[in-house]
Formats: sequence, structure tokens, C-alpha cells
Amino acid sequence: MPHFLSTTDADFDARFAALLNMKREDSPDVDDRVAGIIADVRARGDAAVIELTRDLDGLTLTPETLAIPAEEVDRQCALVTDEERAALELAADRIRAYHERQLPEDDSWTDASGATLGWRWTPVSAAGLYVPGGQASYPSSVLMNAIPAKVAGVPRLAITVPTPQGQVNPLVLLAARISGVDEIYRIGGAQAVAALAYGTDTIAPVDKITGPGNAYVAAAKRRVFGKVGIDMIAGPSEILVIADAENDADWIALDLLSQAEHDASAQSILITTDADFGQAVHSAVEKRLETLERRAIAGDSWAENGAIITVRDLDEAAALSNRIAPEHLELCVADPEALAAKCTHAGAIFLGQWTPEAIGDYVGGPNHVLPTARSARFSSGLSVLDFMKRTTLARMTPEALQAIGPAAETLAQSESLEAHGLSVAARRQRLNQG
Amino acid sequence: MPHFLSTTDADFDARFAALLNMKREDSPDVDDRVAGIIADVRARGDAAVIELTRDLDGLTLTPETLAIPAEEVDRQCALVTDEERAALELAADRIRAYHERQLPEDDSWTDASGATLGWRWTPVSAAGLYVPGGQASYPSSVLMNAIPAKVAGVPRLAITVPTPQGQVNPLVLLAARISGVDEIYRIGGAQAVAALAYGTDTIAPVDKITGPGNAYVAAAKRRVFGKVGIDMIAGPSEILVIADAENDADWIALDLLSQAEHDASAQSILITTDADFGQAVHSAVEKRLETLERRAIAGDSWAENGAIITVRDLDEAAALSNRIAPEHLELCVADPEALAAKCTHAGAIFLGQWTPEAIGDYVGGPNHVLPTARSARFSSGLSVLDFMKRTTLARMTPEALQAIGPAAETLAQSESLEAHGLSVAARRQRLNQG
Repeated sequence: MPHFLSTTDADFDARFAALLNMKREDSPDVDDRVAGIIADVRARGDAAVIELTRDLDGLTLTPETLAIPAEEVDRQCALVTDEERAALELAADRIRAYHERQLPEDDSWTDASGATLGWRWTPVSAAGLYVPGGQASYPSSVLMNAIPAKVAGVPRLAITVPTPQGQVNPLVLLAARISGVDEIYRIGGAQAVAALAYGTDTIAPVDKITGPGNAYVAAAKRRVFGKVGIDMIAGPSEILVIADAENDADWIALDLLSQAEHDASAQSILITTDADFGQAVHSAVEKRLETLERRAIAGDSWAENGAIITVRDLDEAAALSNRIAPEHLELCVADPEALAAKCTHAGAIFLGQWTPEAIGDYVGGPNHVLPTARSARFSSGLSVLDFMKRTTLARMTPEALQAIGPAAETLAQSESLEAHGLSVAARRQRLNQG
Repeated sequence: MPHFLSTTDADFDARFAALLNMKREDSPDVDDRVAGIIADVRARGDAAVIELTRDLDGLTLTPETLAIPAEEVDRQCALVTDEERAALELAADRIRAYHERQLPEDDSWTDASGATLGWRWTPVSAAGLYVPGGQASYPSSVLMNAIPAKVAGVPRLAITVPTPQGQVNPLVLLAARISGVDEIYRIGGAQAVAALAYGTDTIAPVDKITGPGNAYVAAAKRRVFGKVGIDMIAGPSEILVIADAENDADWIALDLLSQAEHDASAQSILITTDADFGQAVHSAVEKRLETLERRAIAGDSWAENGAIITVRDLDEAAALSNRIAPEHLELCVADPEALAAKCTHAGAIFLGQWTPEAIGDYVGGPNHVLPTARSARFSSGLSVLDFMKRTTLARMTPEALQAIGPAAETLAQSESLEAHGLSVAARRQRLNQG
């Protein structure tokens, strides 16, 4: 049974706060184990990676077979059906087109003092993408991580994907190929993250690591952060649907379930202006749960973390949405743009009843790697900018230095940083002599 | 004595690698203590903050006196000289003008399928800025952190600044006022970071915390990351100057010393095409060190971490620069723009001999909060974007859903996510019936 709340309840504030603060993730403490793995890979390189892959994935590799060669990728890609290949290509084209618009512009200008200022964006030299193995090995995630990197201009993009007992996912390899990935290694876990961050004889180190993973991968990414850049550490997926009564209850139920089926710790919330519609959605969810393939997972998620909240009006809905700061926000109301303008904290917004969130997972174009656990208050989904960095530029003329240098000298003195001031003063002295 | 290297040395590669990997920072392990402080502030709020401030800063506060009231800020600001005030205002104006150009644009377009896509940038609701007390209490850092936040449109900006024994820095308060800071609290250390992240009865929580600090502050920022956003954890400052022989050795010496005087663990490196010029700079540094106020600190930094590297040509210089990925890069050569184009990993570049790095610390306009410890390979200096987040937007029409929905269904099926596919299929079924 999901949580039923109404803003007219006397205890609403307390129950809503409890919902917000619910701890959904039980993250096992694997940090010590991960620290050991990273130290081992740093010390012994390929040998450690190969040993861990043998022990953890049941796969015996050599330095020569760590990478999946092009011929093997070819063979695997040939196993993909035409329909799946076309779907991946359509998705890739749309994701690429969306992300190409994110490419930032350089700028340069000369101001009144004569100083020329600006900045320049450049891609990282090498990025590594972690792809989970097994059930959570999603080709769509390969597209969503790899395409922004390639659009950014990253010259070297490596992926690591564990292949337990040698099992590879042909769609993952095809997604990597379509995205322009340069290197593919059949390794996973903390050892893969360590190899990407520190490098081995076979795997050159990268500058940025992105991609989802289990608790070991998350702990490893936290530990290598600073040595390399990382994307966010993703928590369980979330959706908030705001719907008025003019909706098909079954559609909304399926949208809620499409988050719930990811993971028992996922969270699906419906906010509606109509309590009866909320009940209808609840019934529709229960009915769909009778036959859904992943009904065990989705049912647990819905019962534990699901919620249906009745509000007086859409302003109330927007205010609650901003407190939740959802990863995915679906607005199934008459004027979704007007409501979206009030929903300022959300990873991605899906406007109107013809935009199920699942479109965004695959083929919409925007990225599906989005901030979870209320972090949309302060962070954004993955983008081209995550694979680039900005260098600021400044050039003074003698005139500009004369104009603004004295202020720098004054501030340097007030901060007791004499050499700072002298480095300006010595140059100005020459100008004053001239 | 700094390190002297030449690319013509037989052991250059090994010595350069050692220079790159030198561990300059001795960060005391304060993490357990910080974890305790954060837990205490979360549990007891104001009472814990007040107790810690009494014990650590020798200052007795009440919930009513945690904030510095406007009248007290007025009184302190009146103590600032006209010259200092004018310098701060000139700096603020230039920093504001530079950062206003960073404001990102929203976008929205309709593609061939009929889907409307786009994104929207919004500021965080509240940001907190940590300002160190004592010797490292730099008014320029207040400007560099606070102005980008206000340009981003952050409605609530709070600063915390410890005032040991009640000592406040009038210039810090004036910088806060000029920047438009909304709240000022006289607290510091891990307790200030915890109060900003989790809130107390008196201090409302923020969504993003930026600003420099000691090991306790850095450990606290790491610990609250995820609950709130943080900027980078800054390491010791660094400068790399690339200079040909056509420079004044004393100017270059002062530029190197303006980093060295920050901190004994700071690093100043000169790369030059002329070994004799390198010697001349070394002599000039030694001479300046005889009289420099902060000669103890700067001398230690130069002797321990300083380096003069002779290269065959500027291409070699650029290649080494990219391996160093310096925080500050000064290009004192005939054609600095041409060299800058080859230096792709750097926080900030200062072009030509009339642009001492100190200009960028105060009045240039670009931000002086920059990536250290080689992280310019993958990260950027502080900017307006650090105080904003992007929400992606998508709206399908029935036609668009018909056009791209089937590919989403195919991919959902290949990932065994049935509800994802059904949420699209149920809508398309209606369209096919209609």
C-alpha cells in the first residue's frame, strides 16, 4: 500500500517531511574493501585487475584479452536484430542532436580599460565510462554517457563493462560502437574504476569517469574523485507525476510503475488535484501489478516508497514539487508549460500527457542521467559540459595596467600579500619612467 | 634551492614525473573530529554551534548574536579607507561585468518529429559562502564567491566568517555588502559548514556551499556533499610562468613569489627557452627574498616546491604545461595567443608580460577560485554556472509519439523494462484506435 496524503490532513506537514526524509537506500559499507582494491590495482596494475576479474567475474583474462578487439565487437554487433539496431540509431541520432546544442561558446572582448578578457572551453583528453554488467547493463546508458563525451570532442573514450563468465551484451557493444567509443575493456567493479583512474600497463588513465554502478563502483568513484573528475553518484530513481483528473488513470499508473520497476528502492509519487483520480490510479497500479513481468520489484517499490498526495490546487502541487526536487517530473495537466514555470527544481520535466517519462529514458534527446535524492536543488543532469572545462583568459595592455593596477596594489596591501602588489608595481614603475 | 631541470637532461622524464607527483600538502586527518562536530550540530543546532564557537574561537554568542546585524556591519564598513573602498568597488564592478557574460541561455525548439525540446537554467534557492578568519581572511575571495552567486540570481546568500575573540575584518564585511550578501554569521570551522548544510533554528539551510577553508572546513565540505552541493576542495596555489629571454627577470621573479608567499606548500614553476634567463630569474627571486615581508613562507615554498625548467622551444613548453595542468598559467612570450592555443589544460591564462597573475587575483574580472593539483585537466574555475542548475524539457505531440515511440518500446523490451514500454504503447494504442 503506498502512502496516501492530503494537504488538508492535520498531520500533512509531518507526514510529507517524513516522506522527504525517508531513507530508501541501504548502501552496504564496502569502503574498506574498495580501498584495498584500489591500492592493489595501483600497486600491481594489470595483474591485480586480472586476478580480481577471475575471482569476482569468473573470467580468466590476460593483458592481451583485457580489451574486446574490434573483430569480437563486429561479431557481437551482428547478433543484434535490425529492429533493435534501428531503435538504437534513432535514439543515438536524437541524443546527439540534443547535446550538440549544448556545446558552449568561447568568448573574448576588450573592455573600456583596454584589457582583453574571455574564456575558452576545451574537452578533457580522455574519459572512461563505467557500464554495469548483468541485469542493469543498459545500452541506453551507454548512449547517454558516451554521446555527450564525443559531442564535447573527447578524443579518447574508454568503457569498462564486466562480462561475468564471459557473457557480453551485444546491444551494449553496438551502443558503444554507434557512440564512437574508442576502447572497450571487459572488466568491472572497483577494479575497473581504479584502472581507469590510475592506469595500468594496458589501460591508459583517463581524466573523467562517468556512469552508473553498484555500491562498490560508487565507493570507488568517491575515492578516485580528485585524481580524476567524476559525475554524480546516482541514487535510486524517482518520478513525480502531477496530474489533474483529465487523464487516463492507466497511463499514469504505467508511468509510476516505469520507475518502480527499476529497483525496490525507487520512488514513484503522484500529486493530484482530485482524490478520486488518485484512487483510480491506485487501482490501475494494482491491476497492472498483477501481470507485470517485474511485479515483485515494482510492487515492493510501490508499497514501500510510493505515494499519492491530494492537493487543493496546482500552486500547492508546484510548491511540494520544489521541496521534493524530483529527478523526473511529469506534468499531466491542461497547461503544462504554465505549471513547469513554477517547478524550479527538477532534473527533467515531461510536459503533457503525451510525454511519458520512458520517452526520456530512450529517445527523447535530453540526457537520462539526472540528479537524484533531492539534488536537483543544486545540480543538473549529465551534459556536454561534464566532459569539458573552461580556461579563463586575460590580457592587459600597459594602459589597462595603469588603469586598474593601483586597485590591485591597494587590495594586495590590505591582504598583506606584498609580492602580489610588487608584481604590479614593478611594471607600472617602468611605465611611469617611460 | 628550487628544482632545476632541462629537457635535455638524460633523467628529465623521471625528474619531471617526480615534480608532478610531489605531494605538497600535509592534510591532517581530522575527519573523525569533523564527523563528530557535524553530528553534534545536526542534533543540537544552535546550542552546539554556540558551544563550539566558545571553545574554538573564544567567543561567547547567543542565538540572537550569531548573525552580525546591519548596524554593526555599517559601523565596521565605516572604518575602511576611501582608497580601499574604491579598490573593492572597482574589483567588484569588473568581476560582475565578467560574470554577467557567463549567464547561460535557455533554449527551446521543435524538431522534425514534432517534439518540443529544450532546457532551462535556474539559480539555487540559497547558497552559503565560507570565509576563513584570521590571516587567510581575504576580502577578494568574498567578491569572487559572492558576486557569481548574485549574478546567477541566488535569492539568499549567507556567509559564515569566524571572528576569533570577536575580531572582525572590516574589509570582509564591506566586500560582503558590496556583493549583496544577505546574511552574515560570525562562526567558522566544521560547525559553520554543518549549520549551513543542515540548518539550525537560527540559520536556515542552504543548497550549495562554496569557499576556501582549512582542513576542518575541507573535511566538512566533503562530508556534507550530496546533502548540498559544494565547489571544489582547493589545494595549495600554483603558478606556471612560461617566459622567453625577452622579459624582465625581476618581474617574473615577483610573479613566482606572488604564489609562493601564499603558503609554504604553494608551487611556482618557470619554464623558459633560455637557461641564462632562468638563472637570472633565480637570482632575482633570491634578491627579492631578502626583503619580502612574507620571506619565510615564500622562501620555504620556493626552496621546496619551486622549479626552473629549461626547454628547447615553446612547443615543448606547451606540452609540459599540459602535463602540469596549472591553476595559473602566465605566458610571457612574443605571441602569447599562439602559445595559449596550445595550452589546453589550465585554470586561467594570463597573456603577455603586462599581465601579472596578481591582476587576476583582484581586479581582472575572471574568477580567482581555480582548479588546483592538476585538476584543470577536468574541471574549471568557479563561475555563475556553479550557482545554477539546468532542467531539461521535453514535450511530445501525438504525432511525435507515433514517430519515435516504437523505438522506445523496442529498447525498453531489450532492457526487460516492460512498464517503460507499456507506458508508451498504451498511449499509442489510443492513437491507433482514434
